[in-house]
Amino acid sequence: MAFVVAESLAEQIANHLADRIIQGDLVNNERIQEARIVSELQVSRGSVREALLILERRHLVTIQPRRGAYVTELNADRVRSLYRLYGNLLEMLAEKLAWSWKEEDKKKLELLVNKLRNTAAVHDHHLFIEANFELISSAAVAAGNEYLKTALDNLQPPLHRALALALRKNLGEMDETSLFVTRLIECTLSEQNDEIPALVNEYCKRHCSLVVQAIEANTLKESV
Amino acid sequence: MAFVVAESLAEQIANHLADRIIQGDLVNNERIQEARIVSELQVSRGSVREALLILERRHLVTIQPRRGAYVTELNADRVRSLYRLYGNLLEMLAEKLAWSWKEEDKKKLELLVNKLRNTAAVHDHHLFIEANFELISSAAVAAGNEYLKTALDNLQPPLHRALALALRKNLGEMDETSLFVTRLIECTLSEQNDEIPALVNEYCKRHCSLVVQAIEANTLKESV
Repeated sequence: MAFVVAESLAEQIANHLADRIIQGDLVNNERIQEARIVSELQVSRGSVREALLILERRHLVTIQPRRGAYVTELNADRVRSLYRLYGNLLEMLAEKLAWSWKEEDKKKLELLVNKLRNTAAVHDHHLFIEANFELISSAAVAAGNEYLKTALDNLQPPLHRALALALRKNLGEMDETSLFVTRLIECTLSEQNDEIPALVNEYCKRHCSLVVQAIEANTLKESV
Repeated sequence: MAFVVAESLAEQIANHLADRIIQGDLVNNERIQEARIVSELQVSRGSVREALLILERRHLVTIQPRRGAYVTELNADRVRSLYRLYGNLLEMLAEKLAWSWKEEDKKKLELLVNKLRNTAAVHDHHLFIEANFELISSAAVAAGNEYLKTALDNLQPPLHRALALALRKNLGEMDETSLFVTRLIECTLSEQNDEIPALVNEYCKRHCSLVVQAIEANTLKESV
């Protein structure tokens, strides 16, 4: 039995639409017209529907029986829910990793921390966010709890969207984020576990409020 | 745009295979032969592959490039990882619910607690597990964090499998579980938050060790 590991057409369409949502090209509550995508991308209706179901699982699109599909509204409540769960999982990840990392994990994570710092230094927020999630995902593999890894991976699309929104408003924030992630990995690898909860809590509170501010600024702009 | 909400063929095949895995009819590491399912269920190869990908997302099946698909091994390490994350999420759920429930949530949750007790009383472990997850899922809706709800929902298939294994060995455990869940909901609805962490911790430790014992008993049987 040979599994096709290549991306399916539906996944390609989903990734294309996800990028447009994350970059703010498709906005909160915007309807996603199935027929328009069919003609724009020259793909079948079936693939577009499948893509929308994938995006629903990724928390980027909401599908309602008679209303169809639209971009999930990223509002302050959702952002708070998102960072509450993320903080909880990050803390669990750091605590598990602190007593289970091996020498090879340390090397790999240190390389990824450097990569993150480099992307922050060149102020490329797209590469920066990717490097950030690559690091978290590798840390989750090293922590050895596959259920935790999946739960963190599933939060990536909405976190990506939230982080991209905040960074578009404030590019300097990449340096702060990079400092936090570096410190979190340092604490974890040097067994300074006591610092972890406060560190994660402070980071999530800060980011959550940055994203909420960015949302409020957008809403204000739209209502003018 | 009208969305087909009915289960797709792939989902039906996935549910059928999931039941067989949960009931222990398909065992740890057993290969899932694509061709056999195609001829047994008279369905297309494409639908079977899609079903296997769904089961991979549900943590029930593992797909490896050259080895094909096989039933994910439910071993002691995985069970510990699973209950560690579940405990963490349950605690978060109960704490969030404790300060956000409304009168209508209370009524609904109390009805579901009664339903759970009734299924325990008639010793039907299939209905019991379903009632248990229905209650957790409704509590997650009432708690109002959709990301947390999804994370909990995603743990249901492997938890279902673990719980079914433990209950097949020890039917009396349903009463204990039902008492725990009842107490957890009571604490949450009466704002006795202080008890929640210890309660969740005790429950997860107990269940985790019951499942690990059941796995060890199975392994012993197989090696005789």
